[in-house]
Amino acid sequence: MPGEFLKPWYTSIYGMPISKPMITIYSQDHRYQDAQFELIDGKLMPPYEKPSRAEMVLTQVLDVGLGTVLPPKDFGLKPILRVHDPGFVTFLQMAWEEWVVAHGQYDALPLNWATRTMRHDRIPESIDGKLSYYSFDAGTPITSGTWRAITSSANVALTGQELVSRGERSVFALCRPPGHHAARDFYGGYCFFNNAAIAAQAFRDAGAERIAILDVDYHHGNGTQTIFYDRADVLFISIHAHPNQEFPFFLGYEDERGIGNGKGYNRNYPLGLGIDWRVYQEVLGDATRCIQNYSPDVLVISLGVDTFEHDPISKFRLKTQDYQWIGEAIATVDRPTLFVMEGGYAVEAIGVNVVKLLAGFENAA
Amino acid sequence: MPGEFLKPWYTSIYGMPISKPMITIYSQDHRYQDAQFELIDGKLMPPYEKPSRAEMVLTQVLDVGLGTVLPPKDFGLKPILRVHDPGFVTFLQMAWEEWVVAHGQYDALPLNWATRTMRHDRIPESIDGKLSYYSFDAGTPITSGTWRAITSSANVALTGQELVSRGERSVFALCRPPGHHAARDFYGGYCFFNNAAIAAQAFRDAGAERIAILDVDYHHGNGTQTIFYDRADVLFISIHAHPNQEFPFFLGYEDERGIGNGKGYNRNYPLGLGIDWRVYQEVLGDATRCIQNYSPDVLVISLGVDTFEHDPISKFRLKTQDYQWIGEAIATVDRPTLFVMEGGYAVEAIGVNVVKLLAGFENAA
Repeated sequence: MPGEFLKPWYTSIYGMPISKPMITIYSQDHRYQDAQFELIDGKLMPPYEKPSRAEMVLTQVLDVGLGTVLPPKDFGLKPILRVHDPGFVTFLQMAWEEWVVAHGQYDALPLNWATRTMRHDRIPESIDGKLSYYSFDAGTPITSGTWRAITSSANVALTGQELVSRGERSVFALCRPPGHHAARDFYGGYCFFNNAAIAAQAFRDAGAERIAILDVDYHHGNGTQTIFYDRADVLFISIHAHPNQEFPFFLGYEDERGIGNGKGYNRNYPLGLGIDWRVYQEVLGDATRCIQNYSPDVLVISLGVDTFEHDPISKFRLKTQDYQWIGEAIATVDRPTLFVMEGGYAVEAIGVNVVKLLAGFENAA
Repeated sequence: MPGEFLKPWYTSIYGMPISKPMITIYSQDHRYQDAQFELIDGKLMPPYEKPSRAEMVLTQVLDVGLGTVLPPKDFGLKPILRVHDPGFVTFLQMAWEEWVVAHGQYDALPLNWATRTMRHDRIPESIDGKLSYYSFDAGTPITSGTWRAITSSANVALTGQELVSRGERSVFALCRPPGHHAARDFYGGYCFFNNAAIAAQAFRDAGAERIAILDVDYHHGNGTQTIFYDRADVLFISIHAHPNQEFPFFLGYEDERGIGNGKGYNRNYPLGLGIDWRVYQEVLGDATRCIQNYSPDVLVISLGVDTFEHDPISKFRLKTQDYQWIGEAIATVDRPTLFVMEGGYAVEAIGVNVVKLLAGFENAA
């Protein structure tokens, strides 16, 4: 429904009145990202990042009646290109087709990467070379449906952004694939387009002067950090497993504080493996105070729940109850808030934990 | 046989008189690098880089009676540390043990890499992080036997180097795993220790003033290039598939000519896919003239035969007969020559092609 004004349209969707305050944006198009395998722990495994993740969250949103569920609008590529490199976007658009010509009809994975001593100034011409150039891991397959899923995911975030810009107190953008590992010109960590960064930039472009992004995913939001690293208009704060232990390994240290105009507007809280709510609570309190001092017009939450004690690929020990308290802590910032879905791989619990957090926020707000 | 003087010892090995001029150095320890899978073309496949490669070459060496076959001496880590970073060497020594503790008894593969915008100044503490830091691809498994195989492979090269230093006209170091993709502090492309670079440095340390390395493997010898990139005492020349099409993608362009003291002492001949002997011959002629002008004390050949028309992972069109002519062209340099085995994956043909080249050299020399 491009160009349509939203308010009149969503009041009746699914026949549900908007009695509850938290709108969720969701599209089934995420199902087009449905890889056969991902490389993890040295094996090709059935992906942890799979469609049922988002479905479980949606189910829980509906079960508890969190609020209206809306499909996304189509914003086209323009807001994506405000954050991502045009060559990178074209690459993602063409990658599957080029891969099929070179290799056949199966998921594309890159093989090698331009680490130290290697060149970054030449972009290879072959699809294998381009995959290597535009990625930073071997665990993020490009499939026949990737382009459809990732443009939809960006639209989910942008629809949420538009609603918040138009006065909604808070919106939940149920994005999938996630986005926070994707940088200006590379993908990885299950992420292609950086949905949170695209939404933050769209808030700026809609007139907001200062945006704060709080990333509570278990993994450092390396992509979001680098996109805004030299800017004072977007404060980025990430609480995550220490990169000397965990993916993405090469960013997320405490001494990364921003550069140039951005100096002082990047803050990392790397935490040791095995930490529980007692440690998390303190750090989160510090983070929210830091955001309050910044006094942003809007708050964007990169919402990962892979901090959960039973997450299969992570090593924090948060319990379901703790997510309510995270939501309450975020509510203390007291700003219009867009929640953007990121990680979380304990599929049975992902919906409960996400909705606990959102409900915690709503009830405290 | 550490410390033992070689000449008297090898004259009777296998009961064969040294009637033929070309000694081959070989150890069965290469068989300890026997991975289950490697990532290639987006799939985990049975490895192309497998023990039968070296066995086929040995069989052919014996069949044609190229000359005596000797086991390597043990040179310890000292000559390896002349080329490789101590932290990298310790990592390779400990990697399997640390991987097994973290994941269990199966081959180790890294997951992600520090590409642009990421940090290179912090070495992760977890084994997964270290694998990512010290590698540049996902196709080079570390197995239970990797350390044994790679130290043996370096010793094979060093034994060859010692024999040439002591007056042998030419020696064939039948190394496996190969080495030319391994840089000072990272592995990849089936390579862990850079055998050719270790041998070249050992020649320098034994008193040779100028070494030329000619790399005729299908893939650019990125590791060897970077190790000697700022040095005038080692000329590096590589003839290979163009990196805008082929692995390693991020090095091997024509404009890489060396830096500092090394300026002018690095030369790349990137060639288009599908080229045959007519093109190769011209480039090889240019390369050998370039080496003659340099007037090295010793010549080291990084000997890959994945330029073969039926190689399963490569796209040049050299025929078996062409390898004899490559050997003859190398002989025109007319210097003591150490051949160091690198790639070649058409297992049925690898032995014939290698020995054609070596015999071509011998007969012309």
